[in-house]
Amino acid sequence: MRHVLSVLVENNSGVLSRVAGLFSRRGYNIDSLSVGVTGDPGYSRITVSLQGDERIIEQITKQVKKLVDVVDVVELPPERAVLRELCFIKVGADAKARSEIFNIATVFRVNIIDVSPTTLTVEMTGDQAKIDAFIELMQPYGIMEIVRTGLAGIARGHDTVSI
Amino acid sequence: MRHVLSVLVENNSGVLSRVAGLFSRRGYNIDSLSVGVTGDPGYSRITVSLQGDERIIEQITKQVKKLVDVVDVVELPPERAVLRELCFIKVGADAKARSEIFNIATVFRVNIIDVSPTTLTVEMTGDQAKIDAFIELMQPYGIMEIVRTGLAGIARGHDTVSI
Repeated sequence: MRHVLSVLVENNSGVLSRVAGLFSRRGYNIDSLSVGVTGDPGYSRITVSLQGDERIIEQITKQVKKLVDVVDVVELPPERAVLRELCFIKVGADAKARSEIFNIATVFRVNIIDVSPTTLTVEMTGDQAKIDAFIELMQPYGIMEIVRTGLAGIARGHDTVSI
Repeated sequence: MRHVLSVLVENNSGVLSRVAGLFSRRGYNIDSLSVGVTGDPGYSRITVSLQGDERIIEQITKQVKKLVDVVDVVELPPERAVLRELCFIKVGADAKARSEIFNIATVFRVNIIDVSPTTLTVEMTGDQAKIDAFIELMQPYGIMEIVRTGLAGIARGHDTVSI
């Protein structure tokens, strides 16, 4: 089952390498990872999406918490958090394909961000299932490139993972 | 000056730790990093945003290319690529503040993704300048949490960073 961990870290040199290294050394299978600044420039947030059962996730959470520079680790359960990623998709598209893709894009609320004589590039945000469904619809046109940020997540309501 | 590198890697254990480790060992200052799957499950793409002059970026590109599991490294210049990140922002908001924020959100084309009696959470995508401008407008309401994915980028037109 997929789990998403939100890890708040101090912005020290090598912190990302240490966190990522812990996962790889222990053989945990990361689906995606994103790191961005927070409101405080001294801290960054790493969001990790990975597969595992409850026991393994609990174990990982404990291990990550012990790392130098890690301030807090919180699991973001899907029913109490918004979990989305940003995705760019470039497909081969002549004029005919273009108008077909425009229609699909409207349904999925996807933004067209670039058009060239032979290609069309879209931007979308959503959970992985929505993005995967759109990608499947684009397959017949010929997908040239997919760029995904990895999941980012925020708790619903008043909860925060803050300093 | 900010530069964005798109690094295509084979999905082997520890690849992220090795790439991140190279930056920290050499003392390069990463602004953000995101890793997501590509269309081919055997490969992932790491997008790194960092500060440095042309000479340093060239040097880093060469070093990253030499790493095991790295297939290709390409710089995405802002004039020939779309560079955006996904950001969640949670602010304290009673009923009065809520309606004010709704109006600002419309101008910025920001999605409201969660409302509670005392908070409001929005999702936005854009370049860093747009996101920073919106965050500044939210400061007076009390920012409770910011989650950013880090920049992801895709070349305009027909260019791709693919296998």
